[in-house]
Amino acid sequence: MWLGFDIGATKLAVAVGDDAGGIAARRRRPIRATGDPRADVDAMLRDAHELLAEAGVAASALRGVGVAAPGPIDFARGTVESPPNLPGWRSVPIREWLGAAFDAPVHLENDANAAALAEWRFGAGRGARHMVYLTMSTGVGGGLVLDGKLYRGTGNAGEVGHMTVEWGDAAELCGCGRRGCLEAYTGGRRWSERLSRVTPADSRVAALAGAPSHARPEHVVAAAREGDAFALAEMDRWNRYLARGLTVLSYLIAPEVFVLGTIATAAGEALSLAPLRQMLAEEMWTPMGAPGEIRGSALGKDAPYYAALCAALEANG
Amino acid sequence: MWLGFDIGATKLAVAVGDDAGGIAARRRRPIRATGDPRADVDAMLRDAHELLAEAGVAASALRGVGVAAPGPIDFARGTVESPPNLPGWRSVPIREWLGAAFDAPVHLENDANAAALAEWRFGAGRGARHMVYLTMSTGVGGGLVLDGKLYRGTGNAGEVGHMTVEWGDAAELCGCGRRGCLEAYTGGRRWSERLSRVTPADSRVAALAGAPSHARPEHVVAAAREGDAFALAEMDRWNRYLARGLTVLSYLIAPEVFVLGTIATAAGEALSLAPLRQMLAEEMWTPMGAPGEIRGSALGKDAPYYAALCAALEANG
Repeated sequence: MWLGFDIGATKLAVAVGDDAGGIAARRRRPIRATGDPRADVDAMLRDAHELLAEAGVAASALRGVGVAAPGPIDFARGTVESPPNLPGWRSVPIREWLGAAFDAPVHLENDANAAALAEWRFGAGRGARHMVYLTMSTGVGGGLVLDGKLYRGTGNAGEVGHMTVEWGDAAELCGCGRRGCLEAYTGGRRWSERLSRVTPADSRVAALAGAPSHARPEHVVAAAREGDAFALAEMDRWNRYLARGLTVLSYLIAPEVFVLGTIATAAGEALSLAPLRQMLAEEMWTPMGAPGEIRGSALGKDAPYYAALCAALEANG
Repeated sequence: MWLGFDIGATKLAVAVGDDAGGIAARRRRPIRATGDPRADVDAMLRDAHELLAEAGVAASALRGVGVAAPGPIDFARGTVESPPNLPGWRSVPIREWLGAAFDAPVHLENDANAAALAEWRFGAGRGARHMVYLTMSTGVGGGLVLDGKLYRGTGNAGEVGHMTVEWGDAAELCGCGRRGCLEAYTGGRRWSERLSRVTPADSRVAALAGAPSHARPEHVVAAAREGDAFALAEMDRWNRYLARGLTVLSYLIAPEVFVLGTIATAAGEALSLAPLRQMLAEEMWTPMGAPGEIRGSALGKDAPYYAALCAALEANG
């Protein structure tokens, strides 16, 4: 059995599971960061021991422990550097601390990589030899499974959110300080900021959100389903920027499958996946062969448990 | 011993060599396409047998035969589809024909991949676990060596020439029919076309070329070495577009090493490699870690023999 933690933006997910993706026990709770990383990790350990007891699994029976955490991560040292949602965490040696608590190898994984592995082992990417996963969530992270294993390059490969989809001084500024990144155009946080500026007060999006300043991607998706013109135009713009990214990824990586997370999955076939397929097919030069299949995430609300489990499975080497 | 062919834009290179890159016999001759692919391949076979005799290697002692050829290639069928410089070649079953001529496995490889393998095994990429090679020649091809082996994806991964470095309707048209590809800005053929339009008649570039209409990248490099302002501005423009490509490659692939071929190698440290390093460092977000090292090709005029040999070495599986 394996024990995994997924440190999300607001919630911690803990799972005990087996190689085949059978989850024996799971728990999700809000993250209550105390400002003292050692205390935070001790609380995670209490969760783990309760969950192991619930699953009837002895700690000594664990084959590996995994942690999926937001980057940046120092893989060589096994430290979580400074997740924005965990105040006080600076170069936290979580691999060492968990290694001292369990007699099993510990693996620390970037959250997007763990989510990519989860889709590849147990979700929409199952059976693909080459898969590119894009989180399409608040931010835009990614993970590459190439030749049947996670590809890291020198450490941070697969940072699809920082591909440039608009060059020049007029391009949107990204949180990284550069302009024109995919995340600056398609990340949920940045899209919400845009929506608060451009949503017409009398639009269906504003009605669903309560006010233009509260408009968010889910309101665009809901209004677009009702046929609202502003929402459909926003969805088209979002798809077009994402298609730019998928085009470059196709030329460089030629994956069998693209798995697209949160927003694309919520928008679904008609509003996102089908238009993306058509845009990508139009952009690809025929001699390169057919572009990869585009699929939504298949794990839904259970994704964090599978990500936690997959981080643990990587402890196997 | 291994036997390899490299079918270039104008020349055929044939090499007999060993695993360690020792080349026992080599030959280069102009490509004389007859319009009859079977006759062309028979001529290649005569070259090969003469070369084996010269090296004192019996055909029966060959462990593998390789062909590096311009794409598109059908890897599954082992056919060269339609190289622009080989009239009459359409889905030529070269793997089958060479397989019938030698009692050894035959491997067919895309020319840019073979050149990438050559730099990785015997040139500037030696020892790198993750290397991106860009030909930077007449066209812009590429090859990815990831986790210590050639990465192909579904077949045509590493098509770096078709990364987009300028989006929108005003971007340069590429030979592939799309706009804004790296090749449309930095490929030697397209750069020459531009130079014939923009080179001032009284410039040093025009003087070296004889006339603006004959201006080519080598004249820009030579004039830039002499400090010519127009040439330096052209070189800067070329470097800036290439740096855009290297930036996206760094975020996605995070290689240890970039190896840059023909034009970048000819321009050298001061005019290309050092400025590219600085541009790339400025574009990379610090938490991603240092970008890959930028190096020129190390194989020089012998590159086609090593590419031929590396195509053969891949016959090993």
